[in-house]
Amino acid sequence: MSMKARAKTRLQVADYVKGIQSGNRILLSRAITLLESSLPSDRKLAESIIEKNLPRTGQSVRVGITGTPGVGKSTFIEALGKYLTSQKRKVAVLAVDPSSQKTKGSILGDKTRMEELSRDPLAYVRPSATHNSLGGVAHATRETVLLCEAAGYDVILIETVGVGQSETAVRGMTDFFLLLMLPGSGDELQGIKKGIMEMADGITITKSDGDNLKRAKQAQLDFQHALHLFTAPESGVLPKVVLSSALEKKGIKETWQLIEDYKTKTTQSGFFTHQRNEQNLNWFHEQIDVLIKNKISQQKKSKATLSGLEEKILSAKLSPGKAAALLLKTMKLTF
Amino acid sequence: MSMKARAKTRLQVADYVKGIQSGNRILLSRAITLLESSLPSDRKLAESIIEKNLPRTGQSVRVGITGTPGVGKSTFIEALGKYLTSQKRKVAVLAVDPSSQKTKGSILGDKTRMEELSRDPLAYVRPSATHNSLGGVAHATRETVLLCEAAGYDVILIETVGVGQSETAVRGMTDFFLLLMLPGSGDELQGIKKGIMEMADGITITKSDGDNLKRAKQAQLDFQHALHLFTAPESGVLPKVVLSSALEKKGIKETWQLIEDYKTKTTQSGFFTHQRNEQNLNWFHEQIDVLIKNKISQQKKSKATLSGLEEKILSAKLSPGKAAALLLKTMKLTF
Repeated sequence: MSMKARAKTRLQVADYVKGIQSGNRILLSRAITLLESSLPSDRKLAESIIEKNLPRTGQSVRVGITGTPGVGKSTFIEALGKYLTSQKRKVAVLAVDPSSQKTKGSILGDKTRMEELSRDPLAYVRPSATHNSLGGVAHATRETVLLCEAAGYDVILIETVGVGQSETAVRGMTDFFLLLMLPGSGDELQGIKKGIMEMADGITITKSDGDNLKRAKQAQLDFQHALHLFTAPESGVLPKVVLSSALEKKGIKETWQLIEDYKTKTTQSGFFTHQRNEQNLNWFHEQIDVLIKNKISQQKKSKATLSGLEEKILSAKLSPGKAAALLLKTMKLTF
Repeated sequence: MSMKARAKTRLQVADYVKGIQSGNRILLSRAITLLESSLPSDRKLAESIIEKNLPRTGQSVRVGITGTPGVGKSTFIEALGKYLTSQKRKVAVLAVDPSSQKTKGSILGDKTRMEELSRDPLAYVRPSATHNSLGGVAHATRETVLLCEAAGYDVILIETVGVGQSETAVRGMTDFFLLLMLPGSGDELQGIKKGIMEMADGITITKSDGDNLKRAKQAQLDFQHALHLFTAPESGVLPKVVLSSALEKKGIKETWQLIEDYKTKTTQSGFFTHQRNEQNLNWFHEQIDVLIKNKISQQKKSKATLSGLEEKILSAKLSPGKAAALLLKTMKLTF
């Protein structure tokens, strides 16, 4: 896509800004591709586009959604998305998926997924950003959120796989974190890491239909109980558990109600803004580390001195500590 | 100590090197204090001391020892130390203890600990290095190992608390990683993180005496079984489980035998050297990150621009990504 974009006439910042703010999805996609690009020229362009759009950002509800594979994440997200567009809301669906970096198994890479929602003029579905680090993916996704907000999307759904640290990253860029769980007893608590449970602002139990219903109701009690074992959430809003079924088209409206209530309460208490501010400052400091890491790894690669130093270390001619100091000196990092 | 050291006549590199290599424990301690110091002048001096001692390093056996509080770590280490000195071996006992940074509860801070071993002319007991990061502590400990080796200590015991990531740090700087466990059923597996079990090259069950003996023997079977569930260790040497008792003075010799066998086998297979090389290269790359993190945090503190940028972020005048780039530019890091 990026190549195609550059093959076309190179657009100016103003073209992108105008296009994005007028809801042009092609230009939005091209701008996102720029901010995911590793070309400095693309990055520079993307930065200006973001800065110009900044005044139009921040008015959406950012919702993180996670759950272990098999829980029916995409079915649920598509249903939630359709419900919201039926309410005349503009919905953007993004993904943070570290797995898509190594194995190409991106949770949104498969273009045929969420087909119906993708065709919805009020929806925008974007495959997972690919980057060489979770920090890189997180940063790109956060910037994508800003561009989607500037494009007028008032609900941003950020999907992530229910494994690994990507949850923490998504929790750190969303207002409300929704955990999807399967019907069943507390056993499910084993499936998902306890830490993730504690991050949840709400839980929706999927596939709560037919034979599952009884177990789903039990699970609802179990999870509700488990959630109360944790220390009261900083938000001040106790997480609730909702039953849902894609088959019977239920629990979607109720899940959204959960999120709306949360937004109302936290807006009144001031926590909503407080959390946004905290997240922005954390992003700032995380991004400092990301930029440094990138810079270093670039320079490491380009340095023949590296292998030279490593040889000296292995032959005990140089201590690793001294070698590190020497390498950094060669890096024009003024250490 | 560092202050006292500087109050005295400032010694030259050669004085330290000569003192350390002649086994002068006072000068060894002062050199270690220099490398733990945050004063650039001390650090510089320490670096030269280390480089000069480098040819005399590497000939020891480096043993990491961990176990949850209450397992009897210090009693076991003192007994092992005494056994080794009785074999005319020179033993150094170091510690990696992140807890000692925040709460002053260093596992080796208490000077009265290992009193007997401390008085042993063939032993050197050093309290945990204090640093503002685990990376800092790890680096200081690794450098301390080098100085102890130059001072002729042929067994280095590095103690750590059985919680947190300090185990990974200690595993990454030792040839053999020993896990101390209490007698009892597989329940103990809960106490210690599974990841730590997998790092162990051997397990010693403490307090295997009196009423405990039966449970200890059961635990031995359980752990031996658990260890075989893991994928074969890279070392090629299957971890064994030893029963020990400080009361009955048993299991110390057997534990040391475990370590000796491991060293013999891995030396023959070449894994011993291979692992040392890997560890040195990892140290090198970790230290690069440590130096950068320190540099950044120093500069962050000293920058008034930081708060200025944070304000701009909170008032949506600047994106965190752009702000990070700007801050780094002000840092003379040539980004």
